[in-house]
Amino acid sequence: MNEREQMNTLFDRLFPLLRSITGEGLRETLSILSEHVPLEIEEVASGTKVFDWTIPKEWVLREAWIKNEAGQDIVNVKQSNLHILNYSEPVDKIVDLEELKQHVYTIPHLPHAIPYVTSYYKERWGFCMSHEQLSSLSEGSYHVYIDSEKIDGGLNYGQAVLPGRSEKEVLISTYVCHPSLANNELSGPIVAAFLYNRIKKWKDREFTYRFVFHPETIGSIAYLAKNGEHLRQHVYSGCVLTCLGGKDKPLNYKMARSTQAPLNRLLDYLVVHEKRGYTIRAFSPLNGSDERQFCSPGFNLPVGQFSRMVYGQYQGYHNSLDTKEAMTIEALQQSVDEIEEILKLQELDGKYINLKPFGEPMLSQYELYPDINSPTSWKESNSRVIDNRQMLNQILMTLNYGDGEHYLTDIAKKLNYPLQDYELSTRKLIEVGLLQGPIRD
Amino acid sequence: MNEREQMNTLFDRLFPLLRSITGEGLRETLSILSEHVPLEIEEVASGTKVFDWTIPKEWVLREAWIKNEAGQDIVNVKQSNLHILNYSEPVDKIVDLEELKQHVYTIPHLPHAIPYVTSYYKERWGFCMSHEQLSSLSEGSYHVYIDSEKIDGGLNYGQAVLPGRSEKEVLISTYVCHPSLANNELSGPIVAAFLYNRIKKWKDREFTYRFVFHPETIGSIAYLAKNGEHLRQHVYSGCVLTCLGGKDKPLNYKMARSTQAPLNRLLDYLVVHEKRGYTIRAFSPLNGSDERQFCSPGFNLPVGQFSRMVYGQYQGYHNSLDTKEAMTIEALQQSVDEIEEILKLQELDGKYINLKPFGEPMLSQYELYPDINSPTSWKESNSRVIDNRQMLNQILMTLNYGDGEHYLTDIAKKLNYPLQDYELSTRKLIEVGLLQGPIRD
Amino acid sequence: MNEREQMNTLFDRLFPLLRSITGEGLRETLSILSEHVPLEIEEVASGTKVFDWTIPKEWVLREAWIKNEAGQDIVNVKQSNLHILNYSEPVDKIVDLEELKQHVYTIPHLPHAIPYVTSYYKERWGFCMSHEQLSSLSEGSYHVYIDSEKIDGGLNYGQAVLPGRSEKEVLISTYVCHPSLANNELSGPIVAAFLYNRIKKWKDREFTYRFVFHPETIGSIAYLAKNGEHLRQHVYSGCVLTCLGGKDKPLNYKMARSTQAPLNRLLDYLVVHEKRGYTIRAFSPLNGSDERQFCSPGFNLPVGQFSRMVYGQYQGYHNSLDTKEAMTIEALQQSVDEIEEILKLQELDGKYINLKPFGEPMLSQYELYPDINSPTSWKESNSRVIDNRQMLNQILMTLNYGDGEHYLTDIAKKLNYPLQDYELSTRKLIEVGLLQGPIRD
Repeated sequence: MNEREQMNTLFDRLFPLLRSITGEGLRETLSILSEHVPLEIEEVASGTKVFDWTIPKEWVLREAWIKNEAGQDIVNVKQSNLHILNYSEPVDKIVDLEELKQHVYTIPHLPHAIPYVTSYYKERWGFCMSHEQLSSLSEGSYHVYIDSEKIDGGLNYGQAVLPGRSEKEVLISTYVCHPSLANNELSGPIVAAFLYNRIKKWKDREFTYRFVFHPETIGSIAYLAKNGEHLRQHVYSGCVLTCLGGKDKPLNYKMARSTQAPLNRLLDYLVVHEKRGYTIRAFSPLNGSDERQFCSPGFNLPVGQFSRMVYGQYQGYHNSLDTKEAMTIEALQQSVDEIEEILKLQELDGKYINLKPFGEPMLSQYELYPDINSPTSWKESNSRVIDNRQMLNQILMTLNYGDGEHYLTDIAKKLNYPLQDYELSTRKLIEVGLLQGPIRD
Repeated sequence: MNEREQMNTLFDRLFPLLRSITGEGLRETLSILSEHVPLEIEEVASGTKVFDWTIPKEWVLREAWIKNEAGQDIVNVKQSNLHILNYSEPVDKIVDLEELKQHVYTIPHLPHAIPYVTSYYKERWGFCMSHEQLSSLSEGSYHVYIDSEKIDGGLNYGQAVLPGRSEKEVLISTYVCHPSLANNELSGPIVAAFLYNRIKKWKDREFTYRFVFHPETIGSIAYLAKNGEHLRQHVYSGCVLTCLGGKDKPLNYKMARSTQAPLNRLLDYLVVHEKRGYTIRAFSPLNGSDERQFCSPGFNLPVGQFSRMVYGQYQGYHNSLDTKEAMTIEALQQSVDEIEEILKLQELDGKYINLKPFGEPMLSQYELYPDINSPTSWKESNSRVIDNRQMLNQILMTLNYGDGEHYLTDIAKKLNYPLQDYELSTRKLIEVGLLQGPIRD
Repeated sequence: MNEREQMNTLFDRLFPLLRSITGEGLRETLSILSEHVPLEIEEVASGTKVFDWTIPKEWVLREAWIKNEAGQDIVNVKQSNLHILNYSEPVDKIVDLEELKQHVYTIPHLPHAIPYVTSYYKERWGFCMSHEQLSSLSEGSYHVYIDSEKIDGGLNYGQAVLPGRSEKEVLISTYVCHPSLANNELSGPIVAAFLYNRIKKWKDREFTYRFVFHPETIGSIAYLAKNGEHLRQHVYSGCVLTCLGGKDKPLNYKMARSTQAPLNRLLDYLVVHEKRGYTIRAFSPLNGSDERQFCSPGFNLPVGQFSRMVYGQYQGYHNSLDTKEAMTIEALQQSVDEIEEILKLQELDGKYINLKPFGEPMLSQYELYPDINSPTSWKESNSRVIDNRQMLNQILMTLNYGDGEHYLTDIAKKLNYPLQDYELSTRKLIEVGLLQGPIRD
């Protein structure tokens, strides 16, 4: 199976599971992901205080349906995980249509869609269905039945670390807690899992890459309660992965709160100077995903967010229209491609030190000063080809601004060559002993 | 009497007094103002060295007139205080028209106006009259008579302090030294006096408000000579009040020299982000009022200036056209309203500290996370009403940027709600123990 | 002889010499320049390591020609110094036309021009001629003869210092190594020599001016190897002089790498605020002259570059079209005028300290507060005349911002008078004891 087929298969296995912020569906999801990423899975017990929050009891759902007087299913969670109000209390009674309506959630302006609704922290029972179906129900009595339970258990998350030469970490976080949603659930963990396997193949990784899969909000808060101090000391950069489907949408980067975050600088450079078609949004704590937690002022980690078909900006957001077809596996693979390239450039974009900073080095003795009369080209493993004059320009610029104060992107801004091409010139300069780096703050 | 009637009465009592930078008129002015503001009045003796200046002798004027050969008054200071050159030497002699003209000041391009002219530091005798009147004088001899004297006495100023919770002070300075001018004299002390009484009624004042009434230039220099060190240690913010009449003119703020002065920041925010119609001028030492002294480089106090019908930009500037009618008491009251509101916002606009900065607080346990299905509104004493979503947005933004580094105006810039509305959300957050502030640098 | 005639004579004596980066032509050039500037001439021995470079052997050229079968000169270095490849190896053999062509350099798109080509660090023999001449050569055999030698000797440079009140230095560097080129060789040393004599006449010089004449690149590197530490400690500002001919071209300033270099600030002020027609280029290490060495990151000296007809942007660049006629002596004199004025303004543009910073000084006691009724004017040796109001405005602005933090250019930006006019007001303020300065960082 090629990579895209593997992504598709993984999607199909994860989609039917009934996930929530705790419970069996979450554990099964982490277990299937472990076949791609060697996750260490941890559990935080129900009732544990995590900062201002408390880990809730585990929610167990065994059965949930509404039947009409004839004993026929109106809805049944076996047909769609979205039919049950997530974290619903149990119920077993006969209600008339009026009472039923008080416990059924629909989306009037999208009459065919079943909404996804949760009530984690307020006790309620309820169902979700399409507005069309609710409208078609006739007067009469209905049997509502939810066999659910809240038990002492825990909240689970999983993580895997790809060590690099440095202890500085790049944090990649994604969430697993929505049942049967595609873009706003599975796109994140699938992209994360395949990104893990791409980065695993890199030779000579500088950074350590930490991948974390957890329920949204309470999950990242629980993770931070245990690992926040470690992250504060080690995280050089990071991103939350969410909503990464959407074939015709450009990659979208939400900036980290910390304005000097490495990905903020790099994405700004790529968009402004290399004219890449990515979209950049300002940081905001008002909406979004777990970057709200990583960027809370007590941590203020340099963690942004990558998405594509952004939450709240497409029809299927939080309802049954959020399907594989609307998202496409192809778009997920494109997200893996683009994020991998950006993370590679992040490895390159540090500060460099010219080791012979007094006057220009005599480049011809290193065979770096081209013979004008016999133009040649430079070529490397990355298949980019650059000519002598470009090579010399990059070398002169890098040596002059190789003062430990300028990032490579600052240097690249002074010329018109892509950052990627500096891989060749910086490596060459390092080989001949003229340059050292990248160094990190 | 309502406030505006009180302002009008105060104006009518102060207008006829013959004020100068020293003397009886100044003392009487301070005495009448004391009925509104409990002024402590001080005196700096003639001859006292104040920095580079020396307090001049007191000027006493008993009588001043010009009579024609028929013994009829041409001008008499009893008709208008402006007829006498302020600080004029005594004289008593018969002069011909030519000599007289050398001692009479007029405004040729405003033939009906009597100018206001002073000669504090150079000995001269002289009169002022309308150009029309001077032109109508026929050849002949004139008796010029000025019964004035310069005696050992002093320069007076008055001040009153409204204590707040903090020792940090807001300085409000205005001048009292021009005789019978409305906008460019009485507008300042009248607005200051009524502003004093407004602020006195505020509950829970943070800052201490210091009101100072003094002659212009030499008065503020004398005040600084005695109190400059105290001001340097305590002044958080301040403003000079001058030329605050002019019904159809917007409030005008001249920035303090110190670019980060709190009122500079606040007015910039109000104009740029809330689109208030105020006018802002850059600081300049070339012209203006006592902010030139407070902002001299040895002090560099964060003191701006509020005006409306700005000196030099209206016909009546420094002449008899500067009347109550041209200025209007209504405009003074509007100035009181606007400056009071700005000073209230200044109390609100500090830096705040999120007391639970690790992850987002669980807002629902403080009843700060609204139940979307039952929209409600928040309302407070200040009669502003804001809805749940605005309240939540303000709360999330304030908590995220409540890091002790952002001013509330910085936070307000990130959303589209007026600064005033944050009174409600910050108070609520402080009540439930999630926020602390405002803190001051 | 007037100055321009002297410049012309100097040009005519220097032009015929066969200069290179070492050797007799260079020494003779320095010797002739010594008649105008009292140069101390130093020598760095061949083989000496200077940072990453090594001083090459001296190149001696005795004879160089190509003869045809008839024994007639095709080219001879006696006709033009440009005919010989600079630093060419010796040769003495009969070659056919094909072999000859491999050793002859031409400029196909400028068929009448003889190029200037060097091969300092790679051993080659060769000639230069016009493309037209090369094309006209018929098949046959040619005698190529170069009597050259590389001997142990040294590289020479010369310097002269004009001491000032301060030990802080202004470095003025120019190169002497190209044979028989006008704009891209002699314009620099001629302007430097006459600038030296202008500055020598200044009364009360603050800065010490150091003039250095050296071969390009290897010469400035050799100079830095010996004097770099001294420069690092003493250089306040500086400029490289190159390509200063070109009558209809504006003076062109290439910024120093160090963004806060005094000339960067001053030229920016002159262009942006005084609308001078100079051109400003950003710093770049990719091309240029010895500022590349002075601005290498290990030194990062505040040294920019002045030019006019910029290298690479005119037809005669590095070929026989670079003549006195194309450059003009008149343009050189204009360069001297303009650079002298800029350096004078640099002496003026420091930070100043108001010695009576508490309140405004009482200006009338220093006769600095003009009597409005009798307008007078101020005039000084520099022949500028400014009126009372301008004088007062400059005084008030200078006193208010005389806080040791603002440069005089910052102050001048706040008003609309040229920097030059502040010479008068600052001198007056210093005379009466109100101001101190300029001070330097």
